[in-house]
Amino acid sequence: MNAPTKIDTSAEALMATAIRVLTMDAVQAANSGHPGMPMGMADVAAVLFNRFMQIDPSCPKWPDRDRFVLSAGHGSMLVYSINHMLGYADMDMDQIRSFRQWGARTAGHPEYGHADGIETTTGPLGQGITTAVGMALAERMHNARFGDDLVDHYTYVIAGDGCLMEGISHEAIDMAGHWQLGRMIVLWDDNKITIDGSTELSTSVDQKARFAAAGWHVQEVDGHDREAIAAAIEAARKDPRPSLIDCKTVIGQGAPNKAGSHKVHGAPLGAEEIAATRTALGWAHEAFTLPKDVYAAWQAVAARGRQAREGWEARLLCNEHGGAFEKSLARPDKVAMAEAIAAYKQKLSADAPKVATRKASEMALEVVNATLPNSIGGSADLTGSNLTLTKGMAPVSKDNYGGTYIHYGIREFGMSAAMNGIALHGGFFPYGGTFLVFADYARPAIRLSALMGLPVAYVMTHDSIGLGEDGPTHQPVEHLASLRAMPNLNVFRPADVVETAEAWEIAATSERTPSLLALSRQNLPCLRTEHRIENLTAKGAYVLREPEGGRDVTLIATGSEVEIAMNAADELARQDVKAAVVSAPCFELFAAQDEAYRASVLGDAPRVGVEAAVEQGWAPLLGARSAFVGMTGFGASAPADDLYKHFGITAEAVAAAAKKLIR
Amino acid sequence: MNAPTKIDTSAEALMATAIRVLTMDAVQAANSGHPGMPMGMADVAAVLFNRFMQIDPSCPKWPDRDRFVLSAGHGSMLVYSINHMLGYADMDMDQIRSFRQWGARTAGHPEYGHADGIETTTGPLGQGITTAVGMALAERMHNARFGDDLVDHYTYVIAGDGCLMEGISHEAIDMAGHWQLGRMIVLWDDNKITIDGSTELSTSVDQKARFAAAGWHVQEVDGHDREAIAAAIEAARKDPRPSLIDCKTVIGQGAPNKAGSHKVHGAPLGAEEIAATRTALGWAHEAFTLPKDVYAAWQAVAARGRQAREGWEARLLCNEHGGAFEKSLARPDKVAMAEAIAAYKQKLSADAPKVATRKASEMALEVVNATLPNSIGGSADLTGSNLTLTKGMAPVSKDNYGGTYIHYGIREFGMSAAMNGIALHGGFFPYGGTFLVFADYARPAIRLSALMGLPVAYVMTHDSIGLGEDGPTHQPVEHLASLRAMPNLNVFRPADVVETAEAWEIAATSERTPSLLALSRQNLPCLRTEHRIENLTAKGAYVLREPEGGRDVTLIATGSEVEIAMNAADELARQDVKAAVVSAPCFELFAAQDEAYRASVLGDAPRVGVEAAVEQGWAPLLGARSAFVGMTGFGASAPADDLYKHFGITAEAVAAAAKKLIR
Repeated sequence: MNAPTKIDTSAEALMATAIRVLTMDAVQAANSGHPGMPMGMADVAAVLFNRFMQIDPSCPKWPDRDRFVLSAGHGSMLVYSINHMLGYADMDMDQIRSFRQWGARTAGHPEYGHADGIETTTGPLGQGITTAVGMALAERMHNARFGDDLVDHYTYVIAGDGCLMEGISHEAIDMAGHWQLGRMIVLWDDNKITIDGSTELSTSVDQKARFAAAGWHVQEVDGHDREAIAAAIEAARKDPRPSLIDCKTVIGQGAPNKAGSHKVHGAPLGAEEIAATRTALGWAHEAFTLPKDVYAAWQAVAARGRQAREGWEARLLCNEHGGAFEKSLARPDKVAMAEAIAAYKQKLSADAPKVATRKASEMALEVVNATLPNSIGGSADLTGSNLTLTKGMAPVSKDNYGGTYIHYGIREFGMSAAMNGIALHGGFFPYGGTFLVFADYARPAIRLSALMGLPVAYVMTHDSIGLGEDGPTHQPVEHLASLRAMPNLNVFRPADVVETAEAWEIAATSERTPSLLALSRQNLPCLRTEHRIENLTAKGAYVLREPEGGRDVTLIATGSEVEIAMNAADELARQDVKAAVVSAPCFELFAAQDEAYRASVLGDAPRVGVEAAVEQGWAPLLGARSAFVGMTGFGASAPADDLYKHFGITAEAVAAAAKKLIR
Repeated sequence: MNAPTKIDTSAEALMATAIRVLTMDAVQAANSGHPGMPMGMADVAAVLFNRFMQIDPSCPKWPDRDRFVLSAGHGSMLVYSINHMLGYADMDMDQIRSFRQWGARTAGHPEYGHADGIETTTGPLGQGITTAVGMALAERMHNARFGDDLVDHYTYVIAGDGCLMEGISHEAIDMAGHWQLGRMIVLWDDNKITIDGSTELSTSVDQKARFAAAGWHVQEVDGHDREAIAAAIEAARKDPRPSLIDCKTVIGQGAPNKAGSHKVHGAPLGAEEIAATRTALGWAHEAFTLPKDVYAAWQAVAARGRQAREGWEARLLCNEHGGAFEKSLARPDKVAMAEAIAAYKQKLSADAPKVATRKASEMALEVVNATLPNSIGGSADLTGSNLTLTKGMAPVSKDNYGGTYIHYGIREFGMSAAMNGIALHGGFFPYGGTFLVFADYARPAIRLSALMGLPVAYVMTHDSIGLGEDGPTHQPVEHLASLRAMPNLNVFRPADVVETAEAWEIAATSERTPSLLALSRQNLPCLRTEHRIENLTAKGAYVLREPEGGRDVTLIATGSEVEIAMNAADELARQDVKAAVVSAPCFELFAAQDEAYRASVLGDAPRVGVEAAVEQGWAPLLGARSAFVGMTGFGASAPADDLYKHFGITAEAVAAAAKKLIR
């Protein structure tokens, strides 16, 4: 940790002014965007970057860089302005000029992967701060493994009133306080303004008391007093608790007539006010033109970062754990995982035990966690139900960042956003569990996993009416459909112990697509008694049973209903009807297969789909002559066998539907 | 408000014991369920009901009854035990015996509508307390309109650690503090246990300080000291702030060997421990058998409530606002609404202005709010974007419960759960707005709206890539599909000013199905220039344009894409291809039409579906010879026109797809 740099404060004032001017000009050019926040927080951001941030724009992925998260993502011009002036190669002035235009890196909200120096996608409020909790925890976990020489950085967050009003912020601050993430520093843009007007319209909470109640270090500063801001950040860095700095700011600061009003939040200032702002700020330069001394001041920050990064690289070279460190950040070893899972599948006896797929998941995780050195498990307080804790995993806590299992508490959304942060930080493969029905609670974070393409895994057990007595509030019927609707998410619903292992192999080695495993509460027989070497789940769907002499009908099922389809095929065979059974554990991977493979699996015969869920989403697997056996409404509270019977999801019903089709 | 009743405390002890015994026996018989909470909170519940609750089991819907919400819904046996002993007619001992069995009213979690005296469905944690905020606010709003004589009741909540860890609890307590809901009293089952073990595994927040920071009155009591509990409830009732009573309890209290452990949370005690508990409690009665004096004690509570209800009815009879009061609770006047909307549609000029459907929604809401005396609008801090505030609506605040518009703050989930509570309380029709993409944040509460069948309306604007520059975090592409997947939710996506008015007519008069309106940010022409008298949106889909001489192709679209389909039909006509255009504003209502109507709309020609969203969910409208023009992944940040062009959702693309089909 370096001491804060002594700086030329008049240069720092210019650094802030440049953020304001670039912001208002870019928003004006786009005729769309949010000038209020970047202008209001320009002083805070200038101080933070000028005196504290350790980043190297010439090496944006330097692992030990400080992380900066703009939780109030609508203020994206703050990041773009700064990254342009810092000299990120992919953020030239043309990018600023084309803010919010097709093909530009300068999207309306910061998009991870669009440009360097954007640590996470933000915009959906409250998630930035929670993702940052995951980053800050990952920093401590990585530090526990590799020491201060290699891992020693801060996580800074700018959050607005919206972030702190969203419920997920409660989950974030409780987690950060509980884990005592002292290197997480939140700069709250306390401007008393929301879109509808004054914050007095909708909130009365004493935020400082609220954060203090969660174990945070709390300060308050004038967000336009740069020395006070610097002193507060220094104090925050020294305090062992996570820190909130309440920055009293004026939204749109610098705009002489519009500052302080909600009207400056999300609309261009207009040519007249822009001219007045230029005058008020004493800024004589044209739009999208910056003086050399401004660039020089910002690039001094970059130079400091570069020096720090070079020092770090020297330390890495002679660190005895350097190899392990680099391995922790590398892509997962697909070959090793494939071998381990193949060996495990082979070891399963031909008549493997009848276990729930959640239990099968635990068995597979024993292999995954033994193979992946950096797997981090967890559950939103359903460990014994999700079966996410494998042998020897110790809880992560403020006293043991070296642990490998996170008790996320009853916080499905917070868990998911934190997992995104852990994945973004690097060094770990996070997975976490809850009930499938509570995917709804986590959904906005699952969406960001998918949008960012993060390798995280959601372990969602109790995946249908098969959970029984807990009733309709706990029975997902529409969740498979709603999750399959989401782009770039692999939804697995394995049928047995073999498919569950295969799904885990894919999930644990996926690089750009998150995975969600929907797993049964109830026991299921092992159906994949043959063809265990190849990972057939990777094909999305495959023929589990092919009748001799051609098909009269094809039964397609997932998860717990594959057993029902197999029984239906037996029943049909007794009635001289030749039924194939297709197991379809992952619709997304099946859609990615070539046409010929898909046609060979689905065949030409009429098809019956079977899933204890709504039909929506099944169309690509069914066809003109097809039927579906599943749910049409919410479930009910009763033992699982009763529910399957009463909702008509039985081998008899499947056989009857098949016979009706081929009659 | 009556003074708390003087009672025989030894009878009260028996009342609590009976809860414990009925709970453990029912869970044991079901071999499934959660004994820990009801046993731990039995003393608190006995005191609350015995000394304070005003309810009349012979008239379960008495409007001025106190509301009791078991936010920790897994402890459902607490409610069932109490309601049985209070003498609710539909809760005989057979119901207790058949806890969690098919067809029983005693579902795993309390289900609204399954049995009397269940004020809301709970189980998804954190929502009970937030729904209760809506109830408590509705009480004050109703009181502001009808006075203390008719509306003067309390809202009591039992919440557990799970409820207080969920993020939504932050939204709930900030809203309740902000609105100063002094008649809301939360009894926190502070037993230091969650499913994974000690609360120390996952939380360090000081809950009492946290609630105080949100403006709550906070107390702490021994949850097994009945006099202390009573004194705390009395003090809470007197304090003008919402109240938290931290009840220090032992989970599973009464079970000599298992109390205090997470093992008693969600599993039967077992025969041996049940016998030991009977001994420890000095309870000699067989399972499902209660002595007369226990029934007598509970039914004294019922008698007190009945007396209070009779007094209230006498006041209603001579109250000058009695008629208006009853009207506020009655079903919506469908005839009046139909007439008002029909008149409004007729008044629109033949070439009605080209407006966004969010603007059309505002125009329709002017009619709806003028017609419905009890409409309560609101937005999660997007009032100017959602256009949910009509003329003359004043904000609801602690100083003006007589207002009609709620600034819910940046709390989509909290807003939605609170709307459920307002609807459940009765007296109001709540609607609330946010962006469609943030339906994900609200989804768990939308699901409870659907599961309970509540008349609430979600106003979800910015419904596609048509919102433009805000980019993929703000562009719903999978949300229509994910919402259509949910049972019992009408998802409307109107195409123009006429359909928007029709959707509102249905939404504002729906009794058992919540509505969600997906509305455009961008302007759309008025396409329904003819046939304006009948509400065609009520049919779900209808032929907007029928070519002469039969169809070569049918173009089916929703919302902003109907204009595109109409332009494609023009283009096809120029190429001598006869295209019908079907507008499909509500898939759910279309599915409910008879086969003949559906066939007449869809026709026999090949079909092209058009929607700026993923295809999933379209299968029932398409067929064997069909194509779909829409989205296949996430959106991007750019002006809307650019996005439509780049993603290929254009009249040209639709015409090309049509020609390819019919070639």
